[in-house]
Amino acid sequence: MYLRKKMKLPIFSYRIKTRYSETDKMGLIHHSVYLVYLEETRTAFWETLGFPYYKMEDEGYFVVVTSIEISYKKPLFYGDTIRVDILNFESNGLKFSYFYNIYNETRDYLSSYAKTSHVFTNKEKKVIRIPSEINEIVKKFL
Amino acid sequence: MYLRKKMKLPIFSYRIKTRYSETDKMGLIHHSVYLVYLEETRTAFWETLGFPYYKMEDEGYFVVVTSIEISYKKPLFYGDTIRVDILNFESNGLKFSYFYNIYNETRDYLSSYAKTSHVFTNKEKKVIRIPSEINEIVKKFL
Amino acid sequence: MYLRKKMKLPIFSYRIKTRYSETDKMGLIHHSVYLVYLEETRTAFWETLGFPYYKMEDEGYFVVVTSIEISYKKPLFYGDTIRVDILNFESNGLKFSYFYNIYNETRDYLSSYAKTSHVFTNKEKKVIRIPSEINEIVKKFL
Amino acid sequence: MYLRKKMKLPIFSYRIKTRYSETDKMGLIHHSVYLVYLEETRTAFWETLGFPYYKMEDEGYFVVVTSIEISYKKPLFYGDTIRVDILNFESNGLKFSYFYNIYNETRDYLSSYAKTSHVFTNKEKKVIRIPSEINEIVKKFL
Repeated sequence: MYLRKKMKLPIFSYRIKTRYSETDKMGLIHHSVYLVYLEETRTAFWETLGFPYYKMEDEGYFVVVTSIEISYKKPLFYGDTIRVDILNFESNGLKFSYFYNIYNETRDYLSSYAKTSHVFTNKEKKVIRIPSEINEIVKKFL
Repeated sequence: MYLRKKMKLPIFSYRIKTRYSETDKMGLIHHSVYLVYLEETRTAFWETLGFPYYKMEDEGYFVVVTSIEISYKKPLFYGDTIRVDILNFESNGLKFSYFYNIYNETRDYLSSYAKTSHVFTNKEKKVIRIPSEINEIVKKFL
Repeated sequence: MYLRKKMKLPIFSYRIKTRYSETDKMGLIHHSVYLVYLEETRTAFWETLGFPYYKMEDEGYFVVVTSIEISYKKPLFYGDTIRVDILNFESNGLKFSYFYNIYNETRDYLSSYAKTSHVFTNKEKKVIRIPSEINEIVKKFL
Repeated sequence: MYLRKKMKLPIFSYRIKTRYSETDKMGLIHHSVYLVYLEETRTAFWETLGFPYYKMEDEGYFVVVTSIEISYKKPLFYGDTIRVDILNFESNGLKFSYFYNIYNETRDYLSSYAKTSHVFTNKEKKVIRIPSEINEIVKKFL
């Protein structure tokens, strides 16, 4: 799907505990929930940086998902503790992408990896360039 | 929980097919999803009456849930077709309540019954009296 | 809805952070998600007691929700930290009920209160008496 | 992302109405819900063919999602009617992929396109070759 960076510390890691309501009748966490975990991790990341999503929305811009690629390697079960690692970013002024691993800490294996891409929009839902304050923050990690 | 009206035709009936993602590891539809079914039924009801929710929101008022009571009698399974019946209303000018049955048509039994109560608010989230246009519509059923 | 115990410390408290995906277009946490928060709190409670849900299921019994009553007083927003308090239990050998407050810590108000009732079933989905090991644990709090 | 087949009738089309609970505070259908729509479409597809998912599970094999790629082009709103088209399949004996368009019928535009890949497992969650009865059915469309 894409080349994962090897042997590099994650930019950010976030722990989540899976919920009963997130399971399906196969006994596993439903595959759509992984997207929620990725989003929660992005949320926590920007909050840690002092620039939470609601602050972005207050300042009049919105982050919209434009594409997702995710590979499910090994399952997550109810009650498992997972760690979502943001491994890397990519940005071209308009599009902003994250690369992740989802690691199952309870069972000690890599569960899945993913890439999500995003654009910023204004209140009228027009795509805008990535705001400079966002760029400043991101640069520190690249 | 409350007295259900007996031997009376439902005011409105709506069919829904359960989804795989709505199951949990017990193999049943997760209990929180029933609230989504009730909401979808209210949505369809007002749409049928020519007064869909988004029109309400366009006109500047919002419907907020203030309480829910639900009794789960028999389960729903993946792929089942259910029928949500709105049995009755109750209104006192400020609070508006619906009474429902959720009937499992695939397995031919009553699955659950429920009552939901609501208030209307304006854009500033202040509770307002039930709009007269809503009252007019509802009166026809009482 | 029911008499809440006054001036008594909660039996158990659990903190949850609301998620973006849990909001709806009104800008609030969707009312169905509160049921997920209550369940997550029960889950954490039994885990704290050394008797997690999956252990129950491994031992061959399941906890099924039979009814829910919930009053929504004030909203939850994206990014809020909430605290779910289990205030009290009720048990009659067959049915087991919890009473809760959902407190919005970010905005410092009581958001909602709820009661959920449950029965235990065996693998064949037959209702059984509350297992003695569960009763032993619960007695300590009553 | 991948080459979409042009000018070819879809293999299967399925209509879904978006739900209020599926919106988020941006006023759009949350991006994770699209995966639920795709799954519901696969479900309906196999049901139409007389080989519903629960029958597969009864016969002892399970369909597991191994990867998803989705491009979000234009949004879905509450109340919109969407049409999910299965455009094509790909199968290599082990892995099975679907290609989709999600078309917003209410607003008359292509909302997104996606590819999902799957493997079959037995009850012990071991990957098995695609069952011959599945292959027989799929061949008719290729």
